[in-house]
Amino acid sequence: MLSFVNDYSEGAHPAILDALVRTNYQQEPGYGDDAFCTSAREKIRLACGDPTADVFFLAGGTQTNQVVIDTMLAPYEGVVACETGHVAQHEAGAIEYTGHKVLTLPQHEGKMCARELDDFVATFFADGNHDHMVFPGMVYISHPTEYGTLYTLAELEALHEVCARWKLPLFMDGARLGYGLVTPGTDVTLEDVTRLTDVFYIGGTKVGALLGEAVVFPRSGMPAHFLTMVKQHGALLAKGRVVGVQFDTLFTDELYTSIARNAIACADVLRAAFAERGYTFLVENPTNQILVVLENQRLAELEQQVAVSFWEKVDDTHTAVRFATSWATKMEDVEALIELL
Amino acid sequence: MLSFVNDYSEGAHPAILDALVRTNYQQEPGYGDDAFCTSAREKIRLACGDPTADVFFLAGGTQTNQVVIDTMLAPYEGVVACETGHVAQHEAGAIEYTGHKVLTLPQHEGKMCARELDDFVATFFADGNHDHMVFPGMVYISHPTEYGTLYTLAELEALHEVCARWKLPLFMDGARLGYGLVTPGTDVTLEDVTRLTDVFYIGGTKVGALLGEAVVFPRSGMPAHFLTMVKQHGALLAKGRVVGVQFDTLFTDELYTSIARNAIACADVLRAAFAERGYTFLVENPTNQILVVLENQRLAELEQQVAVSFWEKVDDTHTAVRFATSWATKMEDVEALIELL
Amino acid sequence: MLSFVNDYSEGAHPAILDALVRTNYQQEPGYGDDAFCTSAREKIRLACGDPTADVFFLAGGTQTNQVVIDTMLAPYEGVVACETGHVAQHEAGAIEYTGHKVLTLPQHEGKMCARELDDFVATFFADGNHDHMVFPGMVYISHPTEYGTLYTLAELEALHEVCARWKLPLFMDGARLGYGLVTPGTDVTLEDVTRLTDVFYIGGTKVGALLGEAVVFPRSGMPAHFLTMVKQHGALLAKGRVVGVQFDTLFTDELYTSIARNAIACADVLRAAFAERGYTFLVENPTNQILVVLENQRLAELEQQVAVSFWEKVDDTHTAVRFATSWATKMEDVEALIELL
Amino acid sequence: MLSFVNDYSEGAHPAILDALVRTNYQQEPGYGDDAFCTSAREKIRLACGDPTADVFFLAGGTQTNQVVIDTMLAPYEGVVACETGHVAQHEAGAIEYTGHKVLTLPQHEGKMCARELDDFVATFFADGNHDHMVFPGMVYISHPTEYGTLYTLAELEALHEVCARWKLPLFMDGARLGYGLVTPGTDVTLEDVTRLTDVFYIGGTKVGALLGEAVVFPRSGMPAHFLTMVKQHGALLAKGRVVGVQFDTLFTDELYTSIARNAIACADVLRAAFAERGYTFLVENPTNQILVVLENQRLAELEQQVAVSFWEKVDDTHTAVRFATSWATKMEDVEALIELL
Repeated sequence: MLSFVNDYSEGAHPAILDALVRTNYQQEPGYGDDAFCTSAREKIRLACGDPTADVFFLAGGTQTNQVVIDTMLAPYEGVVACETGHVAQHEAGAIEYTGHKVLTLPQHEGKMCARELDDFVATFFADGNHDHMVFPGMVYISHPTEYGTLYTLAELEALHEVCARWKLPLFMDGARLGYGLVTPGTDVTLEDVTRLTDVFYIGGTKVGALLGEAVVFPRSGMPAHFLTMVKQHGALLAKGRVVGVQFDTLFTDELYTSIARNAIACADVLRAAFAERGYTFLVENPTNQILVVLENQRLAELEQQVAVSFWEKVDDTHTAVRFATSWATKMEDVEALIELL
Repeated sequence: MLSFVNDYSEGAHPAILDALVRTNYQQEPGYGDDAFCTSAREKIRLACGDPTADVFFLAGGTQTNQVVIDTMLAPYEGVVACETGHVAQHEAGAIEYTGHKVLTLPQHEGKMCARELDDFVATFFADGNHDHMVFPGMVYISHPTEYGTLYTLAELEALHEVCARWKLPLFMDGARLGYGLVTPGTDVTLEDVTRLTDVFYIGGTKVGALLGEAVVFPRSGMPAHFLTMVKQHGALLAKGRVVGVQFDTLFTDELYTSIARNAIACADVLRAAFAERGYTFLVENPTNQILVVLENQRLAELEQQVAVSFWEKVDDTHTAVRFATSWATKMEDVEALIELL
Repeated sequence: MLSFVNDYSEGAHPAILDALVRTNYQQEPGYGDDAFCTSAREKIRLACGDPTADVFFLAGGTQTNQVVIDTMLAPYEGVVACETGHVAQHEAGAIEYTGHKVLTLPQHEGKMCARELDDFVATFFADGNHDHMVFPGMVYISHPTEYGTLYTLAELEALHEVCARWKLPLFMDGARLGYGLVTPGTDVTLEDVTRLTDVFYIGGTKVGALLGEAVVFPRSGMPAHFLTMVKQHGALLAKGRVVGVQFDTLFTDELYTSIARNAIACADVLRAAFAERGYTFLVENPTNQILVVLENQRLAELEQQVAVSFWEKVDDTHTAVRFATSWATKMEDVEALIELL
Repeated sequence: MLSFVNDYSEGAHPAILDALVRTNYQQEPGYGDDAFCTSAREKIRLACGDPTADVFFLAGGTQTNQVVIDTMLAPYEGVVACETGHVAQHEAGAIEYTGHKVLTLPQHEGKMCARELDDFVATFFADGNHDHMVFPGMVYISHPTEYGTLYTLAELEALHEVCARWKLPLFMDGARLGYGLVTPGTDVTLEDVTRLTDVFYIGGTKVGALLGEAVVFPRSGMPAHFLTMVKQHGALLAKGRVVGVQFDTLFTDELYTSIARNAIACADVLRAAFAERGYTFLVENPTNQILVVLENQRLAELEQQVAVSFWEKVDDTHTAVRFATSWATKMEDVEALIELL
């Protein structure tokens, strides 16, 4: 049985497990004050090209979205996101739980349009009754998006420009950032992300770590008393080292990008095979999640031998499913899958 | 330099790291549906003597307290705790963040008195204005307590009886439960805890795991849609396996209790040495946290060679500090410390 | 200068002021336990045809929506509303403030379609990942809607049927209910509303009272400890009598419906005048809010002599505005306005 | 039957009802933008001696405490109050509902001691682990206190000095402020309150209004977007005029203080009568709430003819009860009560 269900089906990259074993008995302070977190923060700052960046380690994606958004919004503000944004759809109301509305915009293959954002904010402030409404307080995008698509540098710059003009912090959910950064053809670098956003995170859980996300606040932008608010959200790890060791490893010798390349290489081969055989894509994207529309009967057959994720019902006889590759995908499994197609 | 700062200074018991390495490439579903979580749940049910217990894995102690209390209280209820309870003092308001008050009772060496609890609840309901006040909705205790003390079986039974009479769920914070269960002289077993509480957790972070707490709801008592509420709190781990593998290991061949015994054995030797030398204890307790009152000058000298935790200022010339042992403490370090005393 | 800005521009119906004066020195208990609240509750139960209905008085509409929705939803649930619902747009995030998402459906002249609701809920529960999403937990409609339109009895019954099938409480925002109940041609009575919803309110603020909304929970459906939760929301009035006296008056000799008829009579005359003169309506409705599209130049002229509410920009040269009538509108003012058209 | 149950048993001072009748048909904008609110704000600024003060009208005391505290605290902060503070005990957890802890200090006849406050804050910041705890973020006092006692000017100045030094806003709950300001012997004026606090409110509900509290933020200190946050809390009145007219009346010709004097005059006569007859006071105070300890049998007899409030059980045979006077108390009722003593 082959599995292309998601990019978090295995444990961690072996170099990470090695590092956990190697550092295991070193006694360190808790709560992120350890030597590993310190070193990882330094390496991440270097990779981002911003020596003034604040870096904080959290455990998972929804937690990170919740803590970042809640601590950066004023009480009367909401976060603007695409209607397909993870925070809008698949986090069980974690943002609303903290008292904030998710204000949604249309999506274009998962992406937000800078002009539509500008119109939305301008219309809001032009409304004479806007003080009876939720203020747009920050902007959430994901890169890669929930559809696996990527912003171009020009698109990011346009969003940045609108956000800066309206003084809205721009937040990038980078749960799969590694895959986005190494995709052939992208013109967006980690330095660009650092320059153009006000906060973003470098996803670990889905890019080779056991767990963990590195939140980066460029230009010393971390909210005051952030650690206390993380604690208040129940999100502060006693053994901060557990994430510190992992990111220290991922940002040593460019492991983070090199293992992401494996996912993209596997996806590219698989994507070409689907295309050659005339399969229909729900949305075309260049990253590690391939969204294919299958006739239901064909899907049932395929699922005898391959595990995939249900994505959405397309019509009564067709279903969209996701084939995900990861840092751990073996090319031989890709080839075995192609064999079956 | 010796360190007795706390019981989470190292990584994890080597058997846990071995298990993470061994299982690393096994592909499993996310969010706790993996084979390791399933197996760990089964082993924990067996150890608890309750085949109907629900078991859920979370990442840390404050998170667990927050999620459990918030999901088990009605909106108009608060949680009753000792004034020294972790939830009352050292969680940055994580309970209040969820909208609930912590109603405090006096502590007796860190413990709640069943009679005082009964009086408190009876007085509340006798007050003609109690519908303008926060209803007591559940009871929080820790075992070992924040002072390292332990409830006796009789004390737990008395609390259980009061709680049952007033229909208040009894919640035990077991962040250090392992140490409490193996302390010589205790008459409280894991089966007793299961029988006498409505929810408790088996601490992993401080008892040999990288991270993780196993929340047990005896008698199928988990709130409906608990997973969704965990997700809503940002507390659901995508790679649930990371905690599953660890608890599966801890509950294989009684690893959990056997490694806890090391901490207690080390603490007993150290405690006897303090007593022999006439040191004063802030509170006497039988577990792995020794609270000693030191003259400030003496403390300063000692801290040249041993790292300890500040506990509280006793008076202008004395300070209470904590010496903690753990699953990882080496008896040779204990002996080296005794040498210094 | 004429004013058709809204239906809360004046104080209260004179009979209400008379009653406040008449009862002023009668000493009564606080918090809704007074004789006036008791009497008003009884009269409302009678008017609703449900002797078992629970009735609770609150101060305003947003407060009522917030308190009712928050106390009737489980923590993991959201409220389903039209995208134009007051709770979705114009309450500054009061629902999200309580931790709940507003799940939106398309609107049809301000109304929710029962079939679309059914599809939405069915799709939700059919989604294999729905436990990572916000559960639909109740349904919010307004009657009259935000566009002044009315549900037919058949439409309400269809919504009721869908809600009952999915066990979703149906909540009707009746901030302007009085106007809806007396509109010629409506086939919906107060008894119907009582029979078909699980909670609704009879608006006072916009129908002749100084302030106040009467929340009705048919069939003894008020949540347990509702008063305590109202207090917790800061919404419990010490002098509950202030609202009690007003509703007692409004439900004596059918004052509530008789004064609402004035608004509708005035609106009908005005609406006919607009139609005769060929004005365009943004949405056609039969109640007390007339939404007219005006050429901007014409609007500017008109505003020299009549105050109206901005509704929305239609295009670069046209604007929709609202002319509202109320219990207090004088027919002579309507005639003066028609003169100007 | 006589009633001394509380100071909100009647409706409103007749001058207020007259004003409501007189202004009833004047058409005004909603949400506090009306001419009455504007005029009332101006008069209150004048009475406070601060032309820069922001003034906002809300409906009731708990609501005001909740909105003010929630909007002035940072998310990681709590409010410091006496253990007997209304916010700590009798608001059903309204503060915690907004996510903030109430940090309690001992009370001294209901009052907070400036030195104890200073110690508390100093100890907090000296604690090396304070970033795991709730930060003190503002200070709540009531004047008169819950025991009817009053701060002296020196005590208020001391609290002000401590608060200013630690940059903690000082908030005075003035639900009964009118009674406190006219008590013979007090050296605290409204100008003093304005000068020494950062926010306070002038209670209307308990001092002659139907409902309403005037929140004053001296020195333009109202939080940005306060109206939106009030709306978000469900606390914004559509007919803001209803409170505006009342405060405009109360601050015309010093009505507010003159009607408060009636309560104090009645209380003084009654208090002297209790003292003469050797009754024991639970707490001695100079304002309009007299707390008397009665033998239970005596209380039962008295309650045949006088309604009073239960305050607390003193011992098995004695109970403390409250006799409250108000703007509406008639001296002849006081004399009738004295007759019974």
